[in-house]
Amino acid sequence: MEKLQQKITEEGVALSDTVLKVDNFLNHQIDPTLMYEVAQEFIKRFENKTITKIVTLESSGIAPAVMVGLILNVPVLFARKKKSLTLTDGLITSKVYSFTKQETNEISIAEKFLSTDDQILIVDDFLANGQATLALIDIVEKVNATVAGIGIVIEKAFQDGGKMIHDKGYQLESLARIKSLKNKTIEFVSEEEFA
Amino acid sequence: MEKLQQKITEEGVALSDTVLKVDNFLNHQIDPTLMYEVAQEFIKRFENKTITKIVTLESSGIAPAVMVGLILNVPVLFARKKKSLTLTDGLITSKVYSFTKQETNEISIAEKFLSTDDQILIVDDFLANGQATLALIDIVEKVNATVAGIGIVIEKAFQDGGKMIHDKGYQLESLARIKSLKNKTIEFVSEEEFA
Repeated sequence: MEKLQQKITEEGVALSDTVLKVDNFLNHQIDPTLMYEVAQEFIKRFENKTITKIVTLESSGIAPAVMVGLILNVPVLFARKKKSLTLTDGLITSKVYSFTKQETNEISIAEKFLSTDDQILIVDDFLANGQATLALIDIVEKVNATVAGIGIVIEKAFQDGGKMIHDKGYQLESLARIKSLKNKTIEFVSEEEFA
Repeated sequence: MEKLQQKITEEGVALSDTVLKVDNFLNHQIDPTLMYEVAQEFIKRFENKTITKIVTLESSGIAPAVMVGLILNVPVLFARKKKSLTLTDGLITSKVYSFTKQETNEISIAEKFLSTDDQILIVDDFLANGQATLALIDIVEKVNATVAGIGIVIEKAFQDGGKMIHDKGYQLESLARIKSLKNKTIEFVSEEEFA
């Protein structure tokens, strides 16, 4: 997605070979208009699929996810990273190992919001080693709902999450694919390389 | 706001005299169309104000906040409850005491995203004792930006946050005001009582 790549180039900061800071429009400050356009692009890419619900992960996944939900007029469900006081029973959980933090956390969704008839579009801000996305897939499949596809705003294509998810046969659509962050330079996978 | 009250009546659950569960459309599962309508109502109520940026708190404030940002075409900034690895320098913080959890947490925003020229609309999902809202106000005022107003989706009017914020002279607009949750019955403040 041209406009997203341009935004990443202009406002993203490669903090290291693996960390891309996009807190100007995605992870802390949010550009709602860009999120709406991101959602339109997701919908175009998944127009072959029936989608009954969007599933994402708090907090940075919520903005792109609700825009998709708004356009498609379907509910959005966000997995929590921490258990809530008022949400304790009937949770479906999955473990997420964070390589950055070197710790395992649990994410959860209330079971009552997913049914076997659901066709779920998973939306998230980032895909790197795939741990969070695989945990969302795991939760959806634990209740025998269907993963219709996975929409990612920014994929770090130099990490192996994208390949793992492709290999499992899911339709994965990443709107910007980063090839490298070496020398603090943001390099994208070109459309030709991808095709 | 009629439609919101109706949704709370139909889908909200009074878990106790103080806890209202609205995870069906606001706190876990989100109804994006309702959030858009909530945003339209906020904009109507603050049409007398210039707004340059929306400030909210992760995670449940994000959905209504991004809808306001989308319509007004202004950025949305969400305060974090936990420090991020890639967001460490230049943070403005404020303490939030949670009566429910009986603990104090810090919320933070990167200073670079707020300027003295900013006219901030604070948007949040709930207002109860006001601790979170007051912390957001504190952060905005620490950088000498202006609080243009405070938009709350659901106010527990039987707790004192609303009064505290009114008394400080801020324009507070709560779209649904709960009078009582006693006997597991959700009772609203009527428009007449409010006026």
